[in-house]
Amino acid sequence: MAFFTDISKIEYEGPTSKNPLAFRHYNADEIVEGRSMRDQLRFSVCYWHTFRGTGADPFGAGTLQRPWDDGTESVENAINRVRVAFEFIEKLGAPFYCFHDRDVAPEGATLAESHKNLDAVADALAEEQQRTGIDLLWGTANLFSHPRYLHGAATSCNADVFAYAASQVKKAMEVTHRLGGENYVFWGGREGYMNLYNTDMKRELDHLAAFMHMAVEHAKSIGFTGQFLFEPKPKEPTKHQYDFDAAACLNFLRQYDLLDHVKLNIETNHATLAGHTMAHELIYASIQGGLGSIDANTGDLLLGWDTDQFPTDIYLTTQCMLAILDQGGLAPGGVNFDAKVRRESFEPIDLFHAHIGGMDAFAHGLKIAAAIRADGVLSDFVKNRYRSFDEGIGAKIEAGSVTFADLESYMLEAGEVHPNESGRQEMLENLVNMYL
Amino acid sequence: MAFFTDISKIEYEGPTSKNPLAFRHYNADEIVEGRSMRDQLRFSVCYWHTFRGTGADPFGAGTLQRPWDDGTESVENAINRVRVAFEFIEKLGAPFYCFHDRDVAPEGATLAESHKNLDAVADALAEEQQRTGIDLLWGTANLFSHPRYLHGAATSCNADVFAYAASQVKKAMEVTHRLGGENYVFWGGREGYMNLYNTDMKRELDHLAAFMHMAVEHAKSIGFTGQFLFEPKPKEPTKHQYDFDAAACLNFLRQYDLLDHVKLNIETNHATLAGHTMAHELIYASIQGGLGSIDANTGDLLLGWDTDQFPTDIYLTTQCMLAILDQGGLAPGGVNFDAKVRRESFEPIDLFHAHIGGMDAFAHGLKIAAAIRADGVLSDFVKNRYRSFDEGIGAKIEAGSVTFADLESYMLEAGEVHPNESGRQEMLENLVNMYL
Amino acid sequence: MAFFTDISKIEYEGPTSKNPLAFRHYNADEIVEGRSMRDQLRFSVCYWHTFRGTGADPFGAGTLQRPWDDGTESVENAINRVRVAFEFIEKLGAPFYCFHDRDVAPEGATLAESHKNLDAVADALAEEQQRTGIDLLWGTANLFSHPRYLHGAATSCNADVFAYAASQVKKAMEVTHRLGGENYVFWGGREGYMNLYNTDMKRELDHLAAFMHMAVEHAKSIGFTGQFLFEPKPKEPTKHQYDFDAAACLNFLRQYDLLDHVKLNIETNHATLAGHTMAHELIYASIQGGLGSIDANTGDLLLGWDTDQFPTDIYLTTQCMLAILDQGGLAPGGVNFDAKVRRESFEPIDLFHAHIGGMDAFAHGLKIAAAIRADGVLSDFVKNRYRSFDEGIGAKIEAGSVTFADLESYMLEAGEVHPNESGRQEMLENLVNMYL
Amino acid sequence: MAFFTDISKIEYEGPTSKNPLAFRHYNADEIVEGRSMRDQLRFSVCYWHTFRGTGADPFGAGTLQRPWDDGTESVENAINRVRVAFEFIEKLGAPFYCFHDRDVAPEGATLAESHKNLDAVADALAEEQQRTGIDLLWGTANLFSHPRYLHGAATSCNADVFAYAASQVKKAMEVTHRLGGENYVFWGGREGYMNLYNTDMKRELDHLAAFMHMAVEHAKSIGFTGQFLFEPKPKEPTKHQYDFDAAACLNFLRQYDLLDHVKLNIETNHATLAGHTMAHELIYASIQGGLGSIDANTGDLLLGWDTDQFPTDIYLTTQCMLAILDQGGLAPGGVNFDAKVRRESFEPIDLFHAHIGGMDAFAHGLKIAAAIRADGVLSDFVKNRYRSFDEGIGAKIEAGSVTFADLESYMLEAGEVHPNESGRQEMLENLVNMYL
Ligand SMILES: [Co+2]
Ligand SMILES: [Co+2]
Ligand SMILES: [Co+2]
Ligand SMILES: [Co+2]
Ligand SMILES: [Co+2]
Ligand SMILES: [Co+2]
Ligand SMILES: [Co+2]
Ligand SMILES: [Co+2]
Repeated sequence: MAFFTDISKIEYEGPTSKNPLAFRHYNADEIVEGRSMRDQLRFSVCYWHTFRGTGADPFGAGTLQRPWDDGTESVENAINRVRVAFEFIEKLGAPFYCFHDRDVAPEGATLAESHKNLDAVADALAEEQQRTGIDLLWGTANLFSHPRYLHGAATSCNADVFAYAASQVKKAMEVTHRLGGENYVFWGGREGYMNLYNTDMKRELDHLAAFMHMAVEHAKSIGFTGQFLFEPKPKEPTKHQYDFDAAACLNFLRQYDLLDHVKLNIETNHATLAGHTMAHELIYASIQGGLGSIDANTGDLLLGWDTDQFPTDIYLTTQCMLAILDQGGLAPGGVNFDAKVRRESFEPIDLFHAHIGGMDAFAHGLKIAAAIRADGVLSDFVKNRYRSFDEGIGAKIEAGSVTFADLESYMLEAGEVHPNESGRQEMLENLVNMYL
Repeated sequence: MAFFTDISKIEYEGPTSKNPLAFRHYNADEIVEGRSMRDQLRFSVCYWHTFRGTGADPFGAGTLQRPWDDGTESVENAINRVRVAFEFIEKLGAPFYCFHDRDVAPEGATLAESHKNLDAVADALAEEQQRTGIDLLWGTANLFSHPRYLHGAATSCNADVFAYAASQVKKAMEVTHRLGGENYVFWGGREGYMNLYNTDMKRELDHLAAFMHMAVEHAKSIGFTGQFLFEPKPKEPTKHQYDFDAAACLNFLRQYDLLDHVKLNIETNHATLAGHTMAHELIYASIQGGLGSIDANTGDLLLGWDTDQFPTDIYLTTQCMLAILDQGGLAPGGVNFDAKVRRESFEPIDLFHAHIGGMDAFAHGLKIAAAIRADGVLSDFVKNRYRSFDEGIGAKIEAGSVTFADLESYMLEAGEVHPNESGRQEMLENLVNMYL
Repeated sequence: MAFFTDISKIEYEGPTSKNPLAFRHYNADEIVEGRSMRDQLRFSVCYWHTFRGTGADPFGAGTLQRPWDDGTESVENAINRVRVAFEFIEKLGAPFYCFHDRDVAPEGATLAESHKNLDAVADALAEEQQRTGIDLLWGTANLFSHPRYLHGAATSCNADVFAYAASQVKKAMEVTHRLGGENYVFWGGREGYMNLYNTDMKRELDHLAAFMHMAVEHAKSIGFTGQFLFEPKPKEPTKHQYDFDAAACLNFLRQYDLLDHVKLNIETNHATLAGHTMAHELIYASIQGGLGSIDANTGDLLLGWDTDQFPTDIYLTTQCMLAILDQGGLAPGGVNFDAKVRRESFEPIDLFHAHIGGMDAFAHGLKIAAAIRADGVLSDFVKNRYRSFDEGIGAKIEAGSVTFADLESYMLEAGEVHPNESGRQEMLENLVNMYL
Repeated sequence: MAFFTDISKIEYEGPTSKNPLAFRHYNADEIVEGRSMRDQLRFSVCYWHTFRGTGADPFGAGTLQRPWDDGTESVENAINRVRVAFEFIEKLGAPFYCFHDRDVAPEGATLAESHKNLDAVADALAEEQQRTGIDLLWGTANLFSHPRYLHGAATSCNADVFAYAASQVKKAMEVTHRLGGENYVFWGGREGYMNLYNTDMKRELDHLAAFMHMAVEHAKSIGFTGQFLFEPKPKEPTKHQYDFDAAACLNFLRQYDLLDHVKLNIETNHATLAGHTMAHELIYASIQGGLGSIDANTGDLLLGWDTDQFPTDIYLTTQCMLAILDQGGLAPGGVNFDAKVRRESFEPIDLFHAHIGGMDAFAHGLKIAAAIRADGVLSDFVKNRYRSFDEGIGAKIEAGSVTFADLESYMLEAGEVHPNESGRQEMLENLVNMYL
């Protein structure tokens, strides 16, 4: 039984189409840099915003019309929702989805009952994956919505909460494994602090590391070989999250010897809340071998909270795809739309507009990035700019074969440096506009 | 010959004094937590803002009246300025000062001449240190003012600039060593990027690490055993500095195996520009063994640039001193006033007002922090809050003796967690007010 | 029947008390600048946060323990809550409270039923006011929580929504009048836009003005002579609120000829979200005759949303009270705690800690401000600083008796200006510390 | 004698050109919405950044290579610079320029000498305008660079400074008049405060208004009929500028009865520093009849200072041109590039890259905006969205023929509002992408 009866499968109609329910750029089978767009982009629909979002905000109740949802917290309703979700994803043509445990299945009165609920819904998810060929990009556990997590999960001051969170992650990882999930994500939730006066930061971080090590061990014990991902976010819900940005996450992973096991899932809106561009976070993580997957959304830089809007800015998507192509792709990660329709976009059709726009913006960005790379216009400029390190004193510096004393001798003789060259920022910005 | 002839040595007159040119809290010999205030606070005056600041800003020329300065870039003028500086620091009663190489001595036409100029001024600095007993907290090199550094120093795309910077740091380190400096600071300057389109971030970071390793080696070769310090700053002058915050710096130091050699010099205004409280950065660095020294100033949280104002907020200084006392002090680091009088506070006397206010605010904060620690009101609250990790399942978690499976068994049996307790943020904030 | 049986009336115990459930500064009958603290401060408890807050946030469910609340939306529960509220306010010793219509009484199935519900609860409010002597500082209508208001209320694109909002404000104003409310507040709620592509800003602002004019007319028609107040807030819930800050509100009131009827209710957290200090907004409104009342809270300047925290910073409260004393007080406005306990401060006792801290911080600020004013240290400095306008060319400028041509003649003769004097910012900041 | 000998006049080569020194979109004679692009866009080059910028920043000396400049503050050098400037503007093909008095001519030892210098340079400007046909969009006076203005100009506490500023504006206005300037701009400079403790805000604002009234009177007296423009900026150089944003400026103009004489010059980077989008400020000013001209640049939303970058973002320029076309154009205002090349873009050729990119981005935005308007896709959506105000109760509300009581009767009968409709934000954002 279909729910979106008025909507057929979204088709590619090319750049001149004005049909709002068609793709103008995303053409799944089109080959870009040797791979299909499907494989380059690995689009994923997130379950929480798209199928569990209500449109509630701190100032008002939910508004989103989801006529298929009976409003109960029953397993039946949850399973029915799975059918709708897969119809949506199938019509949209996204190859992946992601979930939080408590978003797909209702919390039970006890942990055992919650486990049972999750297993029941997982059966339906498995069926739908089988039916549609849609795969699971990643799973995760919601460790922040229930009041028990008000002081955090792995970083709670209450040891029982740590144990509960561990139980929940264990189960979520097992379900992810069963459903063929290619990654497992840790998002901080409330792993941070509200106030330093009542916080033992050292003890909390030690606990968080212990938690992750246990997760790594558990993955081994069940044969889950998916990639672990850690998602940076600087603030909200807590005043300060421990996973502030890529640097804080990578520092934590290095400090606690987790870097071999965990990469990052970078989200645009979290990058900008932390004071970085998305491009910065992607490149910074990538050059350290830590870029695993992305949460493709956008924030509003004039607003200070996580608006999780759908990405439509071509500059943003071009920059993302440049970084992703530069590291040879994201797999087993992907481009997950951790994005929600506005509270005012309350009709089901808005879900299509939103995802089509996001997919098209990324597909457009992919084509632009590939064209820039094909022409080599940025990479050639950069290579030339650093050419003084390719020979002479620069090559020696890179080889580690000179000391401060050597360099001083060299420079005392030279007296002054070879002239610098213009960074040509304006020309390069214009150049990118040529490819739009 | 004295310059501040109207000003006598600033004296401690106690909390009820209304004399603006006296200390109300800083009483150098008063013992707090087993050390004199002098030794707890290790106040330092910075040479650049206090003796080289002009009051220029991006919209206007310098305003500061410095009648002792003849306005030339001569060595004579530089040496004369040293006399004034030491008279000021002596009358103020600060035990330390800090400098950048190009602030104490003029840049010459060649590197050799610059070295010579620095040596000449260092003679005067040595004399004045000897005469007054004022010590050098740290030295550093200015690798950002000269146009040659427009693309960075150690991270410049121009290898010669790397070599020049190396030469300059070598010399600055040697002068610091000669003057008995207890630390040597790296501040990013322009080590960052203006635009990612023209930047090879990986290569730049590799160069920065190579630079620091050479510095460490050079220190060994000359017998300099002072502490290296790396100062985080997120932005300004570049769009994005590599030393963004404590997390980025520590991640860099770990990645490039520099953590044994380098600690952090944390500045309040840089912390807040990066989206952190000063207390966060101090505690975060401290629990990783990385808190070396502080640049004591304050920003204006409604402004987006580094205002480097003198710190007068008692909440800020209390939080700083709580973190510093918690790690047993800062030595060989100190509390350096990397702060400047406002452009509108252009009379020499304003330098006294500014430093007296900053020293008094920190001395007051020290007394408040010590009182809070003596009563144990915060530490007892925190210890009690995490008590569930001191025994039972919590202790096992900390001991690393349980797995996810163990924790799941425990929690399946328990069904739900032991109740959480209020975080009492409001009560704790009120409590701090009781100690002001 | 009492609910807070363990709590007696909160007493003043003086500055040295360490009893967290006593006042250290707020002494209601103590005379400061010729009035009792009670009359200077006119403290008000807000109904919405304090009695209807749940602790829910965008990432999780409510946490706050309110054992008296049966969780239903019944009128009985609402009336019971009134009893609890007045017991709390009475024990706290605040002379005022404020409410939104939908916070005190449940929304009915129809407008008529909602009106009836509000009348029923108003009976209980009237009884409790009578019993306790607690007065109503202001009432308002909640025009943002219900989904009908998703596009705004007076600025909705749906004319029916305007009509519904009008009906609700009419009723809320009538109930406010009946309960002796001294003011009536308009807070924007969703009066703003999410996106300019779908917005007719001109038409929306015209509607908002029409709405306020109708409100003014209705007040006349029912004999309500309380002060209308407009509360600035820059953003949240909408991307951009029309009542952005004091300037935007006053410009609107001037443009639409409402300035004689409406003053401002200034909130700290809204001021800072708009990029202003609270002191700026207070003084800016005050010198235009537009400062009517304040919402006393604080934000976290490193967070970008309205955290509505209880104010405990003495610098903030001192600056507020300086501005308020400078205009001779706030009456008929007051100091309303539009503030909420943290989600993690979930026990009822935290409501006492929070309000006691806020009241004490303002009482302390009042005493500090009065002392500064008594000594004249700031006002004398300011008066002296502008003295050049008290005579000579300055007096002529102020008198409007000179033209550009006159001033040019004057200055061509003078050649250059009389020297400026230092602004002494650092000295003045130190000076304020002397009064803490 | 030519300076840019390697550069010919920049030509339009069409969208497919990859020539960085050609226009891809700006085709001066092409008709868009009934006017040539030249007349729709009215591009202006600013003298200060483009011909007086040095590349200095708070951390370093100037870097920009301007080989024609002999580095002196002589009138000869100033006049030579005029020749270079007009060659540049002519080759670029911009029809207008703007200047500050002290940027075109050096400050003299006395006011009289400064006047004389300005007259001498104005002769050269007049010659070049005559020779090239380039016109003066606006003039203004630099009231912020000289130390005399450290406490402000019209808002200085020093009456002499007011008089000096008046003299300077008088002269700048006369020169603007002589050169056929079509507007005269007031930009705040230091008209704001650094600290409220030493500030009499009321007196300062009164002085600012008196100053503007004198300017209006002087314009009348000399027959200058150009448009006065007031340029909002929230902060920098002062902590808080009085001309914070469009709302603050319009409120000021209304309060002091200046609205008939003064419109606004809106700058992108100032809009965003104040927390608004450029589109917001443009529309907000426009619907109040106050949009006079724009300073076309962009900021970096992750940086907190006025970076004044050249605008290259097509979304930004499209939104600007939508607002400008909606009000029927900007004349006598224009699109002035108040933008500077980066410090690292230090070669003269970078000035061409920068301006070409900005002009092309605006020309592209103009074409996109015109296409969107031609199709009516946004305006039809908006018109339809508010249709409930075109008849029935909505029309009565707009007509002012109903009261709160009428609306309550209407709604008591209706019980609930007609259903809302989706705001379709995502669809509209996608739609704009179709026109790129
Ligand atoms: Co995410
Ligand atoms: Co997010
Ligand atoms: Co510093
Ligand atoms: Co700084
Ligand atoms: Co409020
Ligand atoms: Co608020
Ligand atoms: Co401008
Ligand atoms: Co600007």
